[in-house]
Amino acid sequence: MLTKAEVQDLRSLQERRGREALGLFLVEGEKTLSEVIGSGFPVERIYSTRPVSPEESAGAPVTEVSGPEMARISGLPTPSPVLAVCRIRRVPLSPGGLDRGLTLALDGVQDPGNVGTLLRIADWYGLDRVVLSPDCADLFSPKVVAASMGSFARVAAHSAALAPALASSQAPVLGCDLKGEDAHSLHPRRDAVIVVGSEGRGLSEEVRRHVTAFVTIPRYGRAESLNAAVAAAVVCDNLRRVSA
Amino acid sequence: MLTKAEVQDLRSLQERRGREALGLFLVEGEKTLSEVIGSGFPVERIYSTRPVSPEESAGAPVTEVSGPEMARISGLPTPSPVLAVCRIRRVPLSPGGLDRGLTLALDGVQDPGNVGTLLRIADWYGLDRVVLSPDCADLFSPKVVAASMGSFARVAAHSAALAPALASSQAPVLGCDLKGEDAHSLHPRRDAVIVVGSEGRGLSEEVRRHVTAFVTIPRYGRAESLNAAVAAAVVCDNLRRVSA
Repeated sequence: MLTKAEVQDLRSLQERRGREALGLFLVEGEKTLSEVIGSGFPVERIYSTRPVSPEESAGAPVTEVSGPEMARISGLPTPSPVLAVCRIRRVPLSPGGLDRGLTLALDGVQDPGNVGTLLRIADWYGLDRVVLSPDCADLFSPKVVAASMGSFARVAAHSAALAPALASSQAPVLGCDLKGEDAHSLHPRRDAVIVVGSEGRGLSEEVRRHVTAFVTIPRYGRAESLNAAVAAAVVCDNLRRVSA
Repeated sequence: MLTKAEVQDLRSLQERRGREALGLFLVEGEKTLSEVIGSGFPVERIYSTRPVSPEESAGAPVTEVSGPEMARISGLPTPSPVLAVCRIRRVPLSPGGLDRGLTLALDGVQDPGNVGTLLRIADWYGLDRVVLSPDCADLFSPKVVAASMGSFARVAAHSAALAPALASSQAPVLGCDLKGEDAHSLHPRRDAVIVVGSEGRGLSEEVRRHVTAFVTIPRYGRAESLNAAVAAAVVCDNLRRVSA
């Protein structure tokens, strides 16, 4: 039986303020939880409407709850049988942190579904890290976690002001834009930062100043633009093709 | 002043049943409406909280409404100043309709955001048509229309049972799958059907039987899969690179 205070705490984790206050976030769904545990991400506690084996919980304490209790603590319209509470770990971007390897930098991507999808893309293409500007959707929001399909636990993700980080980057900075170098002609680069902007506005002015090459995906039809996550994936695919 | 019956009719268009009953669907948002009008798609009527110029309405009758009235007829949490009503046109896929050009076929893609994004991708890559299996999200749902960013009005889209259409296709059928030919080694094809499956299940068994080549996007990291729309975009990009 959950206490009222416990329910309140768990419900507060739906909002950024609540997560910051408690230093915790939620992982909902059996598939995502198994990916999180499989990737060694530490889980503080699991709430479940069914028995959970020690392998499944990776040793985290399990609280069995009723269906109605799960509905009260879940943020999903159709709650899953499991809900896990994990501790937020924010790893600062170290100085020179963009110099080596491939980075995906998100400049004001506010839609949490897009941020989650971008983490999944970075994971698929084996990028070394993802950097989120402070005005992106919160990395630990339930929608980001869900859309990332477990990738949030496998990808090194940092929050950082982009302009100063890009200014000091030794690696070239490739900005996804509607005008620029043809993505099909990308040169091999083992070290690079790929920057994508927000859906509505594109790359911010202060970030544009630090872009060393704009990259455009060739268009064969009439759509005005591509979704930010789609554009990032196509650029990653082209860069991996020549650099891998 | 809107009548109660008019409000009820407009609200019924949020649901598939209501749209089928009236043969109408909604377009919300100034940007999407301008793209729809720009592409010559006929608009039956516009509701607006501000004056609309004849160029903007393309001659469609305009009803000025108050902010609270717009809130009652809009499906958006934050209503836009304009809402348009358009007539549903369903164009059947003609026999041999997949034989020429490039087709994107959606096999049970149920998320309306994904269907809209896929229409936008088909539009960007200049594909000749999109075919939706009957269990896809409805082409005329407000979320599909919004996510397509106007592309629904520019792309030839058909609903059709996929298995018989693919069975009679003269064009090769490329199935996006986790195992198959490397997308980076695609051969040029002027005529082809690219099939993407649903997020959870992938391609259905009956569709798989008609696939002539499975295509896989090379993976460099650890994510288990890519989002259906992302995968389709990467395959389109690779196919256009060699075929354009």
